[in-house]
Amino acid sequence: MIQSKGYAAADAKTDLASWNFERREVGPHDVQFEIQFCGVCHSDLHQIRNDWFEGIFPMVPGHEIVGKVLKVGSHVKKFKVGDLAGTGCLVDSCRNCDNCKHGLEQFCMVGMSPTYNGFEQDKTTPTYGGYSNTIVVHEDFVLHVSDKFDLAAVAPLLCAGITTYSPLRYWKVGKGHKLAILGLGGLGHMAVKFGVAFGAEVTVVSTSANKEADAKKLGAHNFIVSKDEKQMAATMGSFDFILDAVSAPHDLNMYMSLLKTDGVHICIGLPPTYYDVHGMSLIMGRKSLVGSLIRGSPET
Amino acid sequence: MIQSKGYAAADAKTDLASWNFERREVGPHDVQFEIQFCGVCHSDLHQIRNDWFEGIFPMVPGHEIVGKVLKVGSHVKKFKVGDLAGTGCLVDSCRNCDNCKHGLEQFCMVGMSPTYNGFEQDKTTPTYGGYSNTIVVHEDFVLHVSDKFDLAAVAPLLCAGITTYSPLRYWKVGKGHKLAILGLGGLGHMAVKFGVAFGAEVTVVSTSANKEADAKKLGAHNFIVSKDEKQMAATMGSFDFILDAVSAPHDLNMYMSLLKTDGVHICIGLPPTYYDVHGMSLIMGRKSLVGSLIRGSPET
Repeated sequence: MIQSKGYAAADAKTDLASWNFERREVGPHDVQFEIQFCGVCHSDLHQIRNDWFEGIFPMVPGHEIVGKVLKVGSHVKKFKVGDLAGTGCLVDSCRNCDNCKHGLEQFCMVGMSPTYNGFEQDKTTPTYGGYSNTIVVHEDFVLHVSDKFDLAAVAPLLCAGITTYSPLRYWKVGKGHKLAILGLGGLGHMAVKFGVAFGAEVTVVSTSANKEADAKKLGAHNFIVSKDEKQMAATMGSFDFILDAVSAPHDLNMYMSLLKTDGVHICIGLPPTYYDVHGMSLIMGRKSLVGSLIRGSPET
Repeated sequence: MIQSKGYAAADAKTDLASWNFERREVGPHDVQFEIQFCGVCHSDLHQIRNDWFEGIFPMVPGHEIVGKVLKVGSHVKKFKVGDLAGTGCLVDSCRNCDNCKHGLEQFCMVGMSPTYNGFEQDKTTPTYGGYSNTIVVHEDFVLHVSDKFDLAAVAPLLCAGITTYSPLRYWKVGKGHKLAILGLGGLGHMAVKFGVAFGAEVTVVSTSANKEADAKKLGAHNFIVSKDEKQMAATMGSFDFILDAVSAPHDLNMYMSLLKTDGVHICIGLPPTYYDVHGMSLIMGRKSLVGSLIRGSPET
């Protein structure tokens, strides 16, 4: 299988002896901040388990980080010591390629630097994430955080938030649309809130009947148990969009049958195994199966 | 697996004893025509082999039909005896559902009547295709054919032609786009001609190096052998669209890595097995995997 270039950490040097394990110094454009809160993302589990690719160990996961600035480099203009700051899934990218120039640093063609389990742009220095005391990040990948919010609740917005917000905006999901959210976990619960806020009629589809109360509390209009064939059959051909936040293996064909003609199934979870997709699920009803990955700095 | 309703012939009564094997009479709105030419479609092979679903036997394949009108029903207005006429993949649909009203009779929600290996709208009378002497079709599903064209060349337009034309139009493929066509068979060769006509830069990707001359003769600008890893690697991330006309099992992940960010992979072939699609192939580069099936009467 040929994977698109520049995406996986594996692009960097794989010879352990060549890696630079020195702690990153605060460079002229860098911000160092004390980590006060860090969300736990399902992708942390995938990565410590090597579900997606061979990880870089020792590993410090965590990419939903909020804290207080301790030190700034001599050229830093956007931050001063004491500011509240946040960082999400990326800490750097080439900033010169077509994707970076369009604010899609997550698809940097030279290879973005993920917050952990990857390399700095030198492709030699491993990055370490938020389950730590401090972190050093280029100021362009640090966001200002308001002290008016609950910082523990802000942290997950930096991954789960933007991961669900971005595709709903990109595919213009809103008023008049029927939106199904698959999975009510870290991503799913954010998706419900955004979907409702954008005006869509939101249905949560879950394997667990006992999530109905939570779904409704978050604002979902409807709830379906995916293991209930009758409920599923009654919903066939009824959704404009499905936002699929499930990271365990599941049958996309079953879910895609819930879409209307020209419906769009958006994957944001990333199961460790392949999806088995039947051609019929695509050509019958001219359906689209699409994916979305976090988002670059400008939209975040 | 729950399939979308109304699509497969299997929706109709499955009790053989209840089928009506009487030859269809020429009803008031029907046209009977003598079949002069009928294209051979790869889907004929799939269907006689039960690749997609349990077929209806005895089966008369053929759905790229051109001939001369022999008889018209009392209420037929569009045709007279002696006219040249054509019929593609559909011979009827409910004409009342949302999809039919939007000219998407191929996705009729009650179930369209395919030209063969399916049932008339009574869900009891099997349909028989173009490898025959005559056929009876409702006038709404018969097209006028000009005598200025080579009729043998017109026939395949009624399936392969519209199957390739429709998605290129729907996804607005044209000037400034790099388009890859996978497979240079019945669909692929039409796709090359349409792609070039619409102004795209067309690259044929084939497993067979010996198809290069034909590809270029049809107007393709470039040719790549998919088994040549160097050629493939050099083309990674370069296409806006892939039109995938391959009906044998193949690795979509490899081909999707040839797409740019936001690229679209359009499936029009229908392999008998599932596609193995990795989530990375979708989320990395926000790519779309979509499908398209023939097209309804208005566009044809």
